[in-house]
Amino acid sequence: MTVTAAKGFEAAGVAVGLKSTGKLDVAVVVNRGPDKVGAAVFTGNRAKANPILWSQQVIADGVVEAIVLNSGGANCFTGSFGFQTTHQTAEKTAELLGVSAADVLVCSTGLIGSGDEVFRAKVLDGVQKGVAALSADGGTDAASAIMTTDTVSKTAVRQRDGWTIGAMAKGAGMLAPGLATMLVVITTDAVLDAAQADAALRAATRVSFDRLDSDGCMSTNDQVTLLASGASGIVPDLDAFRAALADLCGELARKLQADAEGASHDIAIEVRHAASEADAVEVGRSVARNNLFKAAVFGNDPNWGRVLAAIGTTNAEFDPYDTDVWMNGVRVCTAGGPDAPREQVDLTPRAVEVLIDVKAGTHTATILTNDLTHDYVHENSAYSS
Amino acid sequence: MTVTAAKGFEAAGVAVGLKSTGKLDVAVVVNRGPDKVGAAVFTGNRAKANPILWSQQVIADGVVEAIVLNSGGANCFTGSFGFQTTHQTAEKTAELLGVSAADVLVCSTGLIGSGDEVFRAKVLDGVQKGVAALSADGGTDAASAIMTTDTVSKTAVRQRDGWTIGAMAKGAGMLAPGLATMLVVITTDAVLDAAQADAALRAATRVSFDRLDSDGCMSTNDQVTLLASGASGIVPDLDAFRAALADLCGELARKLQADAEGASHDIAIEVRHAASEADAVEVGRSVARNNLFKAAVFGNDPNWGRVLAAIGTTNAEFDPYDTDVWMNGVRVCTAGGPDAPREQVDLTPRAVEVLIDVKAGTHTATILTNDLTHDYVHENSAYSS
Repeated sequence: MTVTAAKGFEAAGVAVGLKSTGKLDVAVVVNRGPDKVGAAVFTGNRAKANPILWSQQVIADGVVEAIVLNSGGANCFTGSFGFQTTHQTAEKTAELLGVSAADVLVCSTGLIGSGDEVFRAKVLDGVQKGVAALSADGGTDAASAIMTTDTVSKTAVRQRDGWTIGAMAKGAGMLAPGLATMLVVITTDAVLDAAQADAALRAATRVSFDRLDSDGCMSTNDQVTLLASGASGIVPDLDAFRAALADLCGELARKLQADAEGASHDIAIEVRHAASEADAVEVGRSVARNNLFKAAVFGNDPNWGRVLAAIGTTNAEFDPYDTDVWMNGVRVCTAGGPDAPREQVDLTPRAVEVLIDVKAGTHTATILTNDLTHDYVHENSAYSS
Repeated sequence: MTVTAAKGFEAAGVAVGLKSTGKLDVAVVVNRGPDKVGAAVFTGNRAKANPILWSQQVIADGVVEAIVLNSGGANCFTGSFGFQTTHQTAEKTAELLGVSAADVLVCSTGLIGSGDEVFRAKVLDGVQKGVAALSADGGTDAASAIMTTDTVSKTAVRQRDGWTIGAMAKGAGMLAPGLATMLVVITTDAVLDAAQADAALRAATRVSFDRLDSDGCMSTNDQVTLLASGASGIVPDLDAFRAALADLCGELARKLQADAEGASHDIAIEVRHAASEADAVEVGRSVARNNLFKAAVFGNDPNWGRVLAAIGTTNAEFDPYDTDVWMNGVRVCTAGGPDAPREQVDLTPRAVEVLIDVKAGTHTATILTNDLTHDYVHENSAYSS
């Protein structure tokens, strides 16, 4: 299933030693057509890895034949040698498939600064083995091959009137918007042109991955790609396609949140009655990035003072003395003062819902984040990534 | 010494049960003149505690007779009752001193949302006892009374040509700019008018407390106050006064950094060759707020990739592929690629120096921060503050 759920796609996941554990570490996904439509969104970080620099060129014409992804090394800040590695990865894939290298996307994930001769040799070996292993059942292996600190592989499928969307995702740390840190490949057999694919993908990521902010840190390697084969022969209702794609991206975003490094709570911060959607996002994000609030949730402490202190750092339209805050259904702060006793709030479940009513307008947004835990500190201090 | 090092000041620190430990918890500092000059800077947080709202009015005319400070409760988001508590605190102090309540500053620190009838009664009791205990030797007790999670009291003194500056500070968490979370009282017996005091204080805090960013979280209660008595009779050279004040504030900022909650490293991030001072500050602050980088330092891992990934999120002028990074004297990244091996970097000392050369201009700024540790998570999850 996953990226091979939709007709017209083959995939593979192979092991070439990029992961010291010997697990699958290179994935190849090929679009067999008849259409070869591609769209992609990339990290907003100005420090971009070599595969991002390459893929931004590839996607410009909206034509994609294949995508190669490796874990075990980000190939970021590895200089011109690293860029050549990415180029050679695309060249070799193209040669084996009989297509143009300019239509092959490349993604990498792992430690920044890693991408030496050994890395290059292994990735090229992965291309050779991956193309040889391509199959219509290869989606599951491909999804495993892109995992890094993920504890589970993340996949999602939507089936509608004669067409299908399938996807795989990886991401477990450094989850912040624009995009969250992740590699995602989405395939569909619906008939779409490049502009339709691009518009649908941007609309979907804006309200899903871009609202996931686990730790405020933005990666150098993020890429979300949509490939359309047209193999179903069905021209979808565009609204239905967009809705299905947004729904699928939302499911993947929640799966990334649920597997965030070291997290013990999944926190949904819903901001209501904001003066604009941008205000709602800014308010939600300020709370999602507040270490004191995140540590309080880890300690099951409904510390609404830290929520208001975080909102106070924004430029959003709001009156700090007329703002209400609910935690898991209990209004702990009303009109800028204490309301229900903290003891009424049960923060022991993994799911925590924070509702903030800023009483300034009609707009709403929900930001997904996690708590700040001992395990987060451990995972990000004991291991390089 | 501390705030009573300069002539013309009396102070006291008393215990009235705001701290469950029975330690000193209310401080009073009185300016006996002949001048009654005051200047203050306040938190940039739009969510401001009642004492901040009050003190902003008091400081408007540049005349201050006294300042009352309590630990054990922030009196923030406590509604109109809380504002009345602050008002009564100033009224009672003024009555006992025979001055106007409009010339009495009030500061509070502790848990947001705390400020009930019991709190009010204790603070007013503290005013009674504090005024009764005022003495020219009271500075040390006053410095103890404002401590919260501080493990040591922070004081500093500068003596120049016939005039003196003395100060006390508290702050150990939620340290972020505009201001860092802190209460600071600085006294001087130099002869200054209100405009001179205000200009000197703003210039000093801009390059000291405003560049301390321990955990990215901004408090609701921050205040830095400068009181001038003129008791030395000396009109200082203004440049010399400004330099001494900035130097004193820098010392206090480093003392706050060294006592930051749960920290195991004091990190100085120096940004060189930025296109503007604002760019240098933005770059330094982006690194100081990056949880992944901060966790890496805790793990003694010179992870320069996380430094570049953090800078990439800024709008500062820089080329990610032509930026150099040093850690504790070792250039680990040059021109956007790996340089000296990580093994050469010793991050085991508490002091960590990160030098970032963005090669875009002539401006420099240094941001002070701390690492992200298990103890930080513990202190901020196990206790409300």
